[in-house]
Amino acid sequence: MPTIDLNADLGEGFGAWRMGDDPAMLRVVSSANIACGFHAGDPDIMTDCFARAGQAGVAVGAHVSFPDLAGFGRRVISMSAPQIERCIAYQLGAAQGVAAYAGHRIAFVKAHGALANLAERDREIAEAIARAVATVDSSLILLAIALSEQVAAGERANLRVAHEIFADRAYTRDGRLAPRAQKGAVLHETDKVIERSLRMLAEGGVITRGERLLPTPIDSICVHGDTPRAVEMAGGLRAALEAAGWNIRAFSPPP
Amino acid sequence: MPTIDLNADLGEGFGAWRMGDDPAMLRVVSSANIACGFHAGDPDIMTDCFARAGQAGVAVGAHVSFPDLAGFGRRVISMSAPQIERCIAYQLGAAQGVAAYAGHRIAFVKAHGALANLAERDREIAEAIARAVATVDSSLILLAIALSEQVAAGERANLRVAHEIFADRAYTRDGRLAPRAQKGAVLHETDKVIERSLRMLAEGGVITRGERLLPTPIDSICVHGDTPRAVEMAGGLRAALEAAGWNIRAFSPPP
Amino acid sequence: MPTIDLNADLGEGFGAWRMGDDPAMLRVVSSANIACGFHAGDPDIMTDCFARAGQAGVAVGAHVSFPDLAGFGRRVISMSAPQIERCIAYQLGAAQGVAAYAGHRIAFVKAHGALANLAERDREIAEAIARAVATVDSSLILLAIALSEQVAAGERANLRVAHEIFADRAYTRDGRLAPRAQKGAVLHETDKVIERSLRMLAEGGVITRGERLLPTPIDSICVHGDTPRAVEMAGGLRAALEAAGWNIRAFSPPP
Amino acid sequence: MPTIDLNADLGEGFGAWRMGDDPAMLRVVSSANIACGFHAGDPDIMTDCFARAGQAGVAVGAHVSFPDLAGFGRRVISMSAPQIERCIAYQLGAAQGVAAYAGHRIAFVKAHGALANLAERDREIAEAIARAVATVDSSLILLAIALSEQVAAGERANLRVAHEIFADRAYTRDGRLAPRAQKGAVLHETDKVIERSLRMLAEGGVITRGERLLPTPIDSICVHGDTPRAVEMAGGLRAALEAAGWNIRAFSPPP
Repeated sequence: MPTIDLNADLGEGFGAWRMGDDPAMLRVVSSANIACGFHAGDPDIMTDCFARAGQAGVAVGAHVSFPDLAGFGRRVISMSAPQIERCIAYQLGAAQGVAAYAGHRIAFVKAHGALANLAERDREIAEAIARAVATVDSSLILLAIALSEQVAAGERANLRVAHEIFADRAYTRDGRLAPRAQKGAVLHETDKVIERSLRMLAEGGVITRGERLLPTPIDSICVHGDTPRAVEMAGGLRAALEAAGWNIRAFSPPP
Repeated sequence: MPTIDLNADLGEGFGAWRMGDDPAMLRVVSSANIACGFHAGDPDIMTDCFARAGQAGVAVGAHVSFPDLAGFGRRVISMSAPQIERCIAYQLGAAQGVAAYAGHRIAFVKAHGALANLAERDREIAEAIARAVATVDSSLILLAIALSEQVAAGERANLRVAHEIFADRAYTRDGRLAPRAQKGAVLHETDKVIERSLRMLAEGGVITRGERLLPTPIDSICVHGDTPRAVEMAGGLRAALEAAGWNIRAFSPPP
Repeated sequence: MPTIDLNADLGEGFGAWRMGDDPAMLRVVSSANIACGFHAGDPDIMTDCFARAGQAGVAVGAHVSFPDLAGFGRRVISMSAPQIERCIAYQLGAAQGVAAYAGHRIAFVKAHGALANLAERDREIAEAIARAVATVDSSLILLAIALSEQVAAGERANLRVAHEIFADRAYTRDGRLAPRAQKGAVLHETDKVIERSLRMLAEGGVITRGERLLPTPIDSICVHGDTPRAVEMAGGLRAALEAAGWNIRAFSPPP
Repeated sequence: MPTIDLNADLGEGFGAWRMGDDPAMLRVVSSANIACGFHAGDPDIMTDCFARAGQAGVAVGAHVSFPDLAGFGRRVISMSAPQIERCIAYQLGAAQGVAAYAGHRIAFVKAHGALANLAERDREIAEAIARAVATVDSSLILLAIALSEQVAAGERANLRVAHEIFADRAYTRDGRLAPRAQKGAVLHETDKVIERSLRMLAEGGVITRGERLLPTPIDSICVHGDTPRAVEMAGGLRAALEAAGWNIRAFSPPP
């Protein structure tokens, strides 16, 4: 029985604020990307997330970001690659500390928001991320956007790389995520999302605009849970995957 | 030849700001308490500190604090003990991550500012600190104010505890650090600081106001480096200790 | 026809996070307390709130707080009274700047969270708030907890004071708000909230536990909007007040 | 007797950190650009600066920035022009509030760091700044880099514009400030700084690389005070200007 991972962003609150329905998503995904305090997340929220994920048998990763609470990590900050690298080392360590405190263990690292977008195409930034991970803990897996510079940088840094596709996003002809601002960049119909995801898994690659297939390993599908409808879509995708014979399981070995 | 450790707070800048003369202090101390981003310190400064300390053969600890950049960690924030505990887990992990990145290794944990003052007398806070350390990494040493609740809490948590005295501070008759606001609480003459430190080491305890001796193990002497005069005093103390036959060496085993 | 003001906290989001249903509450209240960026609120959210309040004919005040985004202003920070005073001057000015930018005008000032709780009983803190307001703009009204030190401090500072009662909170026998942690401190039934509010208005004072009446002018009733049920309760109270012949109108003169 | 203004950045500390020698600079300049809490400055430091400037008869302006304490406002953050505009309204109001509290009055606005650099060439950003100032308080003067988009935007917004040159910076042939990273971009010799400043005043324009003269009104010369040598240079320039018959006086009318 083939296996696939489902991942989602969790712990995206801060202080008194919350975002998304974490308990619901922990019933859907096999891997959770936990905010590390730079775009969201604080020690209380992180502890809670790690503990719940542990109980649910969900693998956890450090969801690293530009230092940008006010912008939710969606804004580019003109930092040098070495500065970004050190920010990632900091966040990764913080996540490892709180995970250990909460009885779980960080298995992977994933870039968030503007940092992830940059690192899709910018080799220098992608290498900064990979180098930070490799230097702090080379046993960690890099969860990378399939076909991106992240993959290449992770491999050059001798990291184990997990390739991720996005269930609800359109891809440009050269295999990049279509910018959210573009019409049709985000898919809103569960049927379409399911159909596309199954096809990409079956055909072994990303399907771009114009029905082009770009072959890539696929280790994980990214889903969202920031709205009730998103949670529903993610749950629907999981059910459809299982019905089609896929076993939902984390790409990282259990702790 | 008897050994003693000298410790000081380093890396207390933030962004474009600096405090104290870190390179000078790295020639004086055997252990450095590195700010973890909550009262001071950022990934760049931390990286720089850990790298320099490593080159200088100086042991490093996580200097954990209330989350209070605007108040330099000197203000009490009415957080619950569990919240404080999680903040420490976060800072400790962050310090471990950046230290690993910079090629050094966190050997101990020390509380800073208002948190340290609280934990001198408040058992619940002292236990929160000890528990955070023990849970995240029980191999770490707790650098604790001699005779304080920190010592007791560390021992109950089965941590290795290093007992610290303060070279330039007066002690109340019950062995507490005299509040800085009190007259005579801080000693400003190098001669006096040296004489007192040597006596406390020789007699094996804290000497309080009224010349009372409170016996305690002494593993480390805390010195300061935030002003040019403070650096000079710290250097003078080191020279005097060495002249008196003391070997200056970190209480933690080398990495 | 007698008039009464209804006030609520608005603009309590930050960055990507939101709290409460501001548009719904703007249909209920006549005065809105707008967070100024210290416990919640940012320039975008504040601008949006001021603009919407202006369109809705709702008066606005600066909701000033301890600097505490991570704790939503609910934590006491051990700052001196002069430091608190300067923080209020800063927030008040910021609110005036953004309100002017958005085409509205700050009419009053209200303390939030831990700062408000302190200033209910602590004369020094209450005076710091009043002095900050009087010094920055003495034409502003101080919206003060009825019977509290805030009232006395505002009067001593020659500010116009608006007296506020809380629709959904129990009062201790000496007229203080019962601490939220106490059983029965917060009322959850709309009927009770309405009945109590009407009685306090009719009898001209706060009704404490044990049915004691403490006479006070009442210029405003504080309602909440942070949950759908709270919005419903606030709307129910407004309807009941109007049915009982009260005209809902801001205590501050229209701009 | 001709008059010229000297301006410098003041109040650039934060919390326990300080930068530059403000008291010394207040004896040199006629206008002080006060950080508003976004790249530096806090309510205590701002209050202190405004009070000292008032006593020294020095005019004050709001030194507005990207929200970037960690980067001292020197990093570009990818915010939209309207977001920048609202940030400026916030900072300007905050500065006005604290200035009023400290008994002084904001006379002008100047952009700091990365925001100033952007607004030298980017019309949209320059217009956002001008619009924020004009909307919050159209009586304020915009202190703008001579020959930049800031000047044009201020004039279109019907603001009074003061034109500023930099004593210690080289200009490219098209009248832009040479990037700091370029060799020779910053002048370090007092004699040269004095000679250049006197020539630009005498000839009525900016002198670029290649000795090109670009005519512009000159209302103020920007000097720096972040190092002891910088303070000395600023003092030397003032003395030389006075010796050459220039009267040092703020471009803004006294409060």
